[in-house]
Amino acid sequence: MSDHSRTLSEIAAALGGELQGNGQLRIRQVAPLERAGEAEIGFVAHAKYRKGLETTQAAALILPRSLADAWSGPRIVVDDPYLYFARVSQLLNPPPAVVRGIHPSAVVLSPVPASASIGALAYVGENCSIAEGVVVGPGCVIEQGVTIGEATWLHSRVVIKSDCVLGRECILHSGVVIGTDGFGIARRKDGSWEKIPQIGRVVIGDCVEIGANTCIDRGALDDTLIGNGVKLDNLIQIGHNCQVGDNTAMAAMSGIAGSTKIGKRVLVGGASGVAGHIEIADDIVLSAHSSVTKSLTEKAVYTSVIPVQPHIEWARNAVQVKHLDAMADRIKQLEKRLNELELKEGEKNE
Amino acid sequence: MSDHSRTLSEIAAALGGELQGNGQLRIRQVAPLERAGEAEIGFVAHAKYRKGLETTQAAALILPRSLADAWSGPRIVVDDPYLYFARVSQLLNPPPAVVRGIHPSAVVLSPVPASASIGALAYVGENCSIAEGVVVGPGCVIEQGVTIGEATWLHSRVVIKSDCVLGRECILHSGVVIGTDGFGIARRKDGSWEKIPQIGRVVIGDCVEIGANTCIDRGALDDTLIGNGVKLDNLIQIGHNCQVGDNTAMAAMSGIAGSTKIGKRVLVGGASGVAGHIEIADDIVLSAHSSVTKSLTEKAVYTSVIPVQPHIEWARNAVQVKHLDAMADRIKQLEKRLNELELKEGEKNE
Amino acid sequence: MSDHSRTLSEIAAALGGELQGNGQLRIRQVAPLERAGEAEIGFVAHAKYRKGLETTQAAALILPRSLADAWSGPRIVVDDPYLYFARVSQLLNPPPAVVRGIHPSAVVLSPVPASASIGALAYVGENCSIAEGVVVGPGCVIEQGVTIGEATWLHSRVVIKSDCVLGRECILHSGVVIGTDGFGIARRKDGSWEKIPQIGRVVIGDCVEIGANTCIDRGALDDTLIGNGVKLDNLIQIGHNCQVGDNTAMAAMSGIAGSTKIGKRVLVGGASGVAGHIEIADDIVLSAHSSVTKSLTEKAVYTSVIPVQPHIEWARNAVQVKHLDAMADRIKQLEKRLNELELKEGEKNE
Repeated sequence: MSDHSRTLSEIAAALGGELQGNGQLRIRQVAPLERAGEAEIGFVAHAKYRKGLETTQAAALILPRSLADAWSGPRIVVDDPYLYFARVSQLLNPPPAVVRGIHPSAVVLSPVPASASIGALAYVGENCSIAEGVVVGPGCVIEQGVTIGEATWLHSRVVIKSDCVLGRECILHSGVVIGTDGFGIARRKDGSWEKIPQIGRVVIGDCVEIGANTCIDRGALDDTLIGNGVKLDNLIQIGHNCQVGDNTAMAAMSGIAGSTKIGKRVLVGGASGVAGHIEIADDIVLSAHSSVTKSLTEKAVYTSVIPVQPHIEWARNAVQVKHLDAMADRIKQLEKRLNELELKEGEKNE
Repeated sequence: MSDHSRTLSEIAAALGGELQGNGQLRIRQVAPLERAGEAEIGFVAHAKYRKGLETTQAAALILPRSLADAWSGPRIVVDDPYLYFARVSQLLNPPPAVVRGIHPSAVVLSPVPASASIGALAYVGENCSIAEGVVVGPGCVIEQGVTIGEATWLHSRVVIKSDCVLGRECILHSGVVIGTDGFGIARRKDGSWEKIPQIGRVVIGDCVEIGANTCIDRGALDDTLIGNGVKLDNLIQIGHNCQVGDNTAMAAMSGIAGSTKIGKRVLVGGASGVAGHIEIADDIVLSAHSSVTKSLTEKAVYTSVIPVQPHIEWARNAVQVKHLDAMADRIKQLEKRLNELELKEGEKNE
Repeated sequence: MSDHSRTLSEIAAALGGELQGNGQLRIRQVAPLERAGEAEIGFVAHAKYRKGLETTQAAALILPRSLADAWSGPRIVVDDPYLYFARVSQLLNPPPAVVRGIHPSAVVLSPVPASASIGALAYVGENCSIAEGVVVGPGCVIEQGVTIGEATWLHSRVVIKSDCVLGRECILHSGVVIGTDGFGIARRKDGSWEKIPQIGRVVIGDCVEIGANTCIDRGALDDTLIGNGVKLDNLIQIGHNCQVGDNTAMAAMSGIAGSTKIGKRVLVGGASGVAGHIEIADDIVLSAHSSVTKSLTEKAVYTSVIPVQPHIEWARNAVQVKHLDAMADRIKQLEKRLNELELKEGEKNE
């Protein structure tokens, strides 16, 4: 591994923040507070984690202003330590150098700029537009007519189906499948199915990151649209004709059924699901393992997860879920009868 | 793109329906009602969507009989507009032409008919039976002894494990994995696991479509069976020894645990799950995000999804889920006490 | 297929158990009790399944001690028939022979022992350590610096990202992705995201089996750790920095969010989810479709699945879920009012 270490002064010069202490200290790596040691920089995100300061062996720390004086070692004081830590880590851990050019084992049927890299055993079909600095990892399949923007990085074994469009500086992880047919079928009278050709594309903005084995379906008639800065974790499903707004982030195993429109900066918890043909407004937060069946228009946190109980207790409660409507009726009935009794009681006392 | 346009007369001649208006009108593409324009045909599935007729700019429409006279433009009147639209779209959007033959970068160890296409960097093992017109996309891996029926299309990067069988006219999308080992393990006394060899196959019928990154496990002893006309969306899991009946359709992220038998024409909503070793009868509908733990024998729609609420409200309600059994007890107790009070009250009034 | 048949005596000599009846009987295959026939051995796991003994046509059986005399045919009597059956099946169904050496179409940049097998169109990057007897299936991508232990088997189209470590005798099924970046992002003031480099690795123990299209993310700072003997089914997600203890088994479509620590011998049901930054103690069992949001320290079975009901009934009950807190209030109110009435009633009778 090559040396990407920086002095604290160099870090502060590059990223800002208020340097306190020995700026000549050389930092090699970021590390968690509890195990950071020589040449490593840790961080404390919030004052509530200040306890860790007592025992840390970190060579240097990134601290919020509220803790500027709570630790005496070399430190950089900033507004948002977590964000700053991300940037320091980027500085110390740049992406690995890539061998430019086309690997001899790749099959490439479109022109590729000299600054791009096409990995071993990758396939690039005809009529693709591959921009400067694009990296196509080993074993990828890029079908005909695909457009890939500048410096976008496809890790190994990604599939991009025909005519889809990726913006610049995207990262697609291994196993991602972009642009396969949406689930479009029309039922025949006998119960069998007629396939509806999926003639839309997937159009992905800039700076989008897509996790391993995630799938985004092409549109049935219109395109499926993924905005700028969208971050998708692993094993996510985005149905045909969906629109996902800028900077929305979705955790692993979440899914959006077809033709649904997700706003900007929405946070979708893991394994949560959103029904088709609805809208989720900007800035909404969905908790993990939640189900959305109707449009949400108010900015808020929404939840429907039911946490586990010991099975024996759960079994007794789960049975009652099936009687909730009856329970509500019984309560109403009780209230009515009690009202009557109280009325009689009152009359007697008059 | 080549021209697959048709006149309205040609469409009606090929697919039936009652043509009204200028049959010489040339139709290039299908489009949604609200943005269909020149040379494009839209459709209205139901009379309840008739409002769209007032503003559509479509060159022609597919209409149900109930709306035959609700629009004066060129139209084809049919019994089932959605199904008809699917067929028109197929007519105007045939699958792309495929280069027949074996790409020089592919590794092919079985005989392949001249009408078949084996894509770049694909692998076909020994003793496979590849029928006429089969398409194996770039990067696919077909292991030894696999049988693939006529005109079945494997998109890029599909895996078919040894000895599995695919019928004719199937479509398998990118990332599909057919026939890996089921989850068969036996526990040793010390808590570690012994693997149970999975010696069954996956046998798939005709006209089956399987979505991206979906997995179907091979049987432990017997075969896993997928009927004719089954449609599976993306990221679905079918456990070992399952049987899925003809024309059943499952939406994305749904899963069927091992040895379960799903009937014919069952509709499985997205992200729903079915336990192992049970049976789901023909024509049952499971709503999205539902869990089935016991066999279902009655044809009906079944649901168990709990839709989201604002988190603050949800938190209060979720706590009570854990006390449902106690709530039921308290209601019963209230009823008993109230009965007694009412009885006393009644006695006094006698 | 080559002949791996054994006589009953050979089986008992290899695996133990008490042989009763003709030891010269040659057994070709294991089979389910109800269809086992000539040269096939079945098993009965528990006395409760003894009914099957009346009609089975099996040539031989594996029986628990409690049924030793319940069937008169050739049999092997053992403590744990299911475990024994697994071992018999292994004996009769050894993994297929693999062609040693590097397929000419593979791209291999690291030294590989002569006993290893690198399949067609596979890629192995630089600085990898490949042990004796390793099998890398067709289309796999092994990035630089990966370590793979003795006799570990990667089925076709597996991805191992840089610097990850696999122990010995592991089995990774097709589509598995090990070591892609965890979902590490820090929010900028404008709502967009800064990527946090994921500089940990994935370190996997010995005898681990990982199902098709399952993803395990590399750690953000520390490593993601998978213990010895862990068994993961298909389409599972393991987040960054997770630790999964020895011999834990997880069924398909389950997911563990980042930094969570799962104990040893934990059983995780299908499609269940565990939140991030929590701990699940040894030997805990999570039912299918359950959600864990807090640490679980007591060994028990935990559940939160709500089984389906017919939709019409469900709709009435689901509405009440939203009013549970109000229902609890109404019950409390009723109890209070009833107490008062009863008190008054009591006073009158004094």
